[in-house]
Amino acid sequence: MNKFSLKQYAPFAILMIFAILALFVPLLPNFDEGKYSAPDIAFVLISAALVFLMTPGLAFFYGGMVHRKNVLSTMIKSVVAAGVITVLWTVVGFSLAFGDTIGGFIGNPKTYLFFQGVNSGPAWGTIPLSLFAVFQLMFAIITPGLVVGAVAERIKFTSYILFIVLFAVFVYSPLAHWTWSANGFLLKMGVLDFAGGTVVHISAGMAALAGAMVLKRRKSHMEHKEVPPANIPYVLIGTGLLWFGWFGFNAGSALGANALAVSAFITTNTAAGAAGLSWMFFDVARGKKPSVLGFCIGAVVGLVAITPGAGFVSIPSSIFIGAIGAVVSNLVVSWKEKTSLDDTLDVFPCHGVGGIVGMLLTGVFATKTVNPLGADGLFYGNPSFFFTQLKGAIIVIIFSFVVSFLIFKLINLVQPIRVSAEEEEEGLDATQHNEKYTQGTLLVEEKIAYIEKNSPLQELLS
Amino acid sequence: MNKFSLKQYAPFAILMIFAILALFVPLLPNFDEGKYSAPDIAFVLISAALVFLMTPGLAFFYGGMVHRKNVLSTMIKSVVAAGVITVLWTVVGFSLAFGDTIGGFIGNPKTYLFFQGVNSGPAWGTIPLSLFAVFQLMFAIITPGLVVGAVAERIKFTSYILFIVLFAVFVYSPLAHWTWSANGFLLKMGVLDFAGGTVVHISAGMAALAGAMVLKRRKSHMEHKEVPPANIPYVLIGTGLLWFGWFGFNAGSALGANALAVSAFITTNTAAGAAGLSWMFFDVARGKKPSVLGFCIGAVVGLVAITPGAGFVSIPSSIFIGAIGAVVSNLVVSWKEKTSLDDTLDVFPCHGVGGIVGMLLTGVFATKTVNPLGADGLFYGNPSFFFTQLKGAIIVIIFSFVVSFLIFKLINLVQPIRVSAEEEEEGLDATQHNEKYTQGTLLVEEKIAYIEKNSPLQELLS
Amino acid sequence: MNKFSLKQYAPFAILMIFAILALFVPLLPNFDEGKYSAPDIAFVLISAALVFLMTPGLAFFYGGMVHRKNVLSTMIKSVVAAGVITVLWTVVGFSLAFGDTIGGFIGNPKTYLFFQGVNSGPAWGTIPLSLFAVFQLMFAIITPGLVVGAVAERIKFTSYILFIVLFAVFVYSPLAHWTWSANGFLLKMGVLDFAGGTVVHISAGMAALAGAMVLKRRKSHMEHKEVPPANIPYVLIGTGLLWFGWFGFNAGSALGANALAVSAFITTNTAAGAAGLSWMFFDVARGKKPSVLGFCIGAVVGLVAITPGAGFVSIPSSIFIGAIGAVVSNLVVSWKEKTSLDDTLDVFPCHGVGGIVGMLLTGVFATKTVNPLGADGLFYGNPSFFFTQLKGAIIVIIFSFVVSFLIFKLINLVQPIRVSAEEEEEGLDATQHNEKYTQGTLLVEEKIAYIEKNSPLQELLS
Repeated sequence: MNKFSLKQYAPFAILMIFAILALFVPLLPNFDEGKYSAPDIAFVLISAALVFLMTPGLAFFYGGMVHRKNVLSTMIKSVVAAGVITVLWTVVGFSLAFGDTIGGFIGNPKTYLFFQGVNSGPAWGTIPLSLFAVFQLMFAIITPGLVVGAVAERIKFTSYILFIVLFAVFVYSPLAHWTWSANGFLLKMGVLDFAGGTVVHISAGMAALAGAMVLKRRKSHMEHKEVPPANIPYVLIGTGLLWFGWFGFNAGSALGANALAVSAFITTNTAAGAAGLSWMFFDVARGKKPSVLGFCIGAVVGLVAITPGAGFVSIPSSIFIGAIGAVVSNLVVSWKEKTSLDDTLDVFPCHGVGGIVGMLLTGVFATKTVNPLGADGLFYGNPSFFFTQLKGAIIVIIFSFVVSFLIFKLINLVQPIRVSAEEEEEGLDATQHNEKYTQGTLLVEEKIAYIEKNSPLQELLS
Repeated sequence: MNKFSLKQYAPFAILMIFAILALFVPLLPNFDEGKYSAPDIAFVLISAALVFLMTPGLAFFYGGMVHRKNVLSTMIKSVVAAGVITVLWTVVGFSLAFGDTIGGFIGNPKTYLFFQGVNSGPAWGTIPLSLFAVFQLMFAIITPGLVVGAVAERIKFTSYILFIVLFAVFVYSPLAHWTWSANGFLLKMGVLDFAGGTVVHISAGMAALAGAMVLKRRKSHMEHKEVPPANIPYVLIGTGLLWFGWFGFNAGSALGANALAVSAFITTNTAAGAAGLSWMFFDVARGKKPSVLGFCIGAVVGLVAITPGAGFVSIPSSIFIGAIGAVVSNLVVSWKEKTSLDDTLDVFPCHGVGGIVGMLLTGVFATKTVNPLGADGLFYGNPSFFFTQLKGAIIVIIFSFVVSFLIFKLINLVQPIRVSAEEEEEGLDATQHNEKYTQGTLLVEEKIAYIEKNSPLQELLS
Repeated sequence: MNKFSLKQYAPFAILMIFAILALFVPLLPNFDEGKYSAPDIAFVLISAALVFLMTPGLAFFYGGMVHRKNVLSTMIKSVVAAGVITVLWTVVGFSLAFGDTIGGFIGNPKTYLFFQGVNSGPAWGTIPLSLFAVFQLMFAIITPGLVVGAVAERIKFTSYILFIVLFAVFVYSPLAHWTWSANGFLLKMGVLDFAGGTVVHISAGMAALAGAMVLKRRKSHMEHKEVPPANIPYVLIGTGLLWFGWFGFNAGSALGANALAVSAFITTNTAAGAAGLSWMFFDVARGKKPSVLGFCIGAVVGLVAITPGAGFVSIPSSIFIGAIGAVVSNLVVSWKEKTSLDDTLDVFPCHGVGGIVGMLLTGVFATKTVNPLGADGLFYGNPSFFFTQLKGAIIVIIFSFVVSFLIFKLINLVQPIRVSAEEEEEGLDATQHNEKYTQGTLLVEEKIAYIEKNSPLQELLS
């Protein structure tokens, strides 16, 4: 290894530069307690913590599904976003998303550079701007983490770090601006996205599709080898933490401890439950066994599908949204399996398609009886809102796919985006991180290697 | 497999029928923000999320204790309740529990059919009725999940799904109505159950006893084979999540962010800590080693025992309740081990007996200095309250045992409630769900199979 | 085994004595609802639950790093503190820490003996005294749990139990009194410690150093054998739970749902993220691979470093504090590795040094624009505050090291503090608790034993 390469020192140097620059941000007079609602602060702070917990949850959800030689490399990719995006969001991301608008398309990067003035900014509704900023940060962290599932088992760690930086700047922040900033153009068009159907799920799903296309297929995929999931209980605890955290994600998006938060909490839970059952029962109807993975994946798809409508649709219709969302994604997964697309853990069918279905069904089932600031949907006699949602979804689909595709291609120009064939074969845990997932794995691997050399067991284990 | 059997399509079809019917629930004008307390909403919403997390926690608590071939099938049975009960509760369960009373015994199923009117219902104290409904839902989810421990390693998955539906309708909802609905007859009798000693724990414990009796003994139990726990750290994280979630369960049952919630929070923690130590130290006193399983099981028993009294007893007396609860359950476990009852993971001694002890000690140690709406117990000079608690406990014991027994028997008439002997031998993960708990397990199993055929290792591993 | 030894019965007997004495604590008239802030109660209650969850989180953080034969014995040592310290804190610990001061050095043990009067005490700011007491309890639980990492893989379980009792009484409670009680002498000196840089982290770090010195080196350490971490995903989920719980730890230390809590929440997250990256990138700069363990340990160090200043420093400077804290601890770990000190999991470099760095950087970067009740630091032109922090840190370093050292020495007089050499070799899980971490481990171990006897595999696995 070239010990004095730029590549080796650059990440640490860049971090240090930011750390030092941060010290010179002017301090502004701070909060005005009087103007905030304490219960809303309590609720949104805890909600932000819950959304944070989704990121380790996601690490387990994904890490349990890959091959045992890629568990850690998959997990760390979700979790490292909590480092990279935290710093990036503080430096410039929040400004790009919620700074003074530049034509409705992007925020001014200088508005809150290094979070300057965030503590003393105008209240965001009933809560401090800083609380809104950190709540939003948690969404910005998990979104690139979702993409991991599509590029797992072959992307180089440094390529991935580059990806999340570029994705956050050029895809996530603009989308957040369009949808949630007061002057965002999608918001002005009338597109409604309660908690991130477009910003989080469609964008991650389309980036996943782009990533899978640029990275191409894993060797195991080309050879039609099935990858047995490393640890299904990890998927289950991951699902539990995601579901738990999603209460903060969706109910917290009401930004206050009010009846709308309660309604969003309930639609979230109902959609998740209905979708978990729907995926599992749909599998059974097609002759498969009811599986743990099926219930878990289904529940997550239900959570995705309800996200854009959580605070706009009624509780009973969330059963429908969850149940249908799961069936659609299940069918797209089956269809994808017949193609040569290697989206390792089905991020596109689950998050991309799930998000699209959610956006459209919000267009169908939204009702002003739930949220007077929302809209009435197709089902309640207002087709124009449905077409607005459709238009919004299409714009986000195209934008996030194209820009993500360009980002992946660009990274591939800078350095090979994939690990080498030998590294892929040996596993990314060992080759990228020099770690093994468990000591048990280590021993089992060693024993297998030994026995393969010394016995006819080889074919049994291949 | 008969590919067009009713059994295969029925679950999905039923779910879809509910999903579609849900769309036609009339929308009523919504919330009146003015009448609620925002801090109470914040607290109970987060508490509901915490109680939700107990269900995956329970999956790990139980899943870590069974044989490695039954881990997933045990875990999914707890978690699937989050799907089944969510839908059922929305459709009819909440109405049965909290609808207009029919003679104090059951709620009118039409009151809140498909949650209709829940969003616009009268406030439940200081919080929206809908929030109360979803908080209660989380209790309804975990209760049948508790029963899993008694029937694990042999119940057929479809039989279990049937069980939780029937249990929720015929046992749980009536008990919730009796105890917590304004017109419930146990409440009117003066029985006090703060957070579910009867509704949740005695009912689950008695259903566990009934289930173990109807299902009969596992093959391994008949052969007196010890089942080494699959993964003790899973039990530990399960315990951690249960203890954490129980703060929502017990303190949340104050239904507001008030001093009563604080008191219930503290008694909960104290009883859990004292009980964990008590179980472990009692084991040591009897010549065993202090074990991780002992501390974990003890802590859960302490949480069970404090549940009915959490908001009625003083903090110091919660040390006693926890410590004694653990000793009693520990002794019942030892006694049970000498019988032929095969309650796989001791649900009856821990939840049934723990719940009974908790109800009775509430009758002993309740004091109006803690909760003016409560009662003074035997220890404070009021034996009549103790006898009321005793009467209440007996009624719930009999009711939940008899009805659960009939439910298990009924299911056994519809289809064999147990998997076949071969399936039991091979493990429920593989035979019911076509999944293996870890890739490592898979490899170890394959290697063992190979070596057993080719070497004298067989006796070592039997 | 001597079946009637005192040692066998004493723990259970002592617990029972406390349980019974607790029943005779006089009941005082209870809460006055009017005087509290409901949103602050909601926020601090949930924060206390979050801090509780750090303890099982810590069990996984540590348990995943030790040898597979010591996983359970490491985990239970963190978790059992939730039992021991809960009871101890209720009986006398809270009084020692927050009872009427005896000269500014310790609280009167009788003030709140058995929590008497805690429920009816004067409010602590806007929240009930009882809530403050249980929030503080969670800190008292995790602190001795932190020390586990230094003494893991060789301390006897009973010695450890003795240690945490003595540490809580003679180190933790006095420090909490000095720092956070209204009359504590460090507080009066002007030392600022927002959430436990001294009380929790320096004290645990110095006790770790003392423990490692008294216990001496593990056999594996003397033989320079590397211990492969048992399960790195456990470390990752542990980190996730610690980070999540730390929001309650630091933001909750504002003791209210206010803008200061928001600021502390954000500095906490930023420092953690920056520190995780810093550790990982610093490793890369030194020619290592970016590792999961590195990111996780770095993030925890960042959380430690920000703890004392979380509510006193600005958001941008928290990037610097996290990034520098990680580099310093990383360097101390490297330096330690060249010495013969066997601090198994680097508790001294991470918590001790991290806490010191945090205290000093609070002295540098504190600013009254963030917290008017705080101070301005060196960077903002006030060197005297820096020297106050330095003096405070030195006092706590000396006190906690000396007293902890004496405690470990004393225990070693009562009984050998270490397990025997044979027990160490066999592993503490089996010898102290008679348990194995997974069934898989059991099988792998058995197979290895078999194969070692029958094949030339031995050298491969040594």
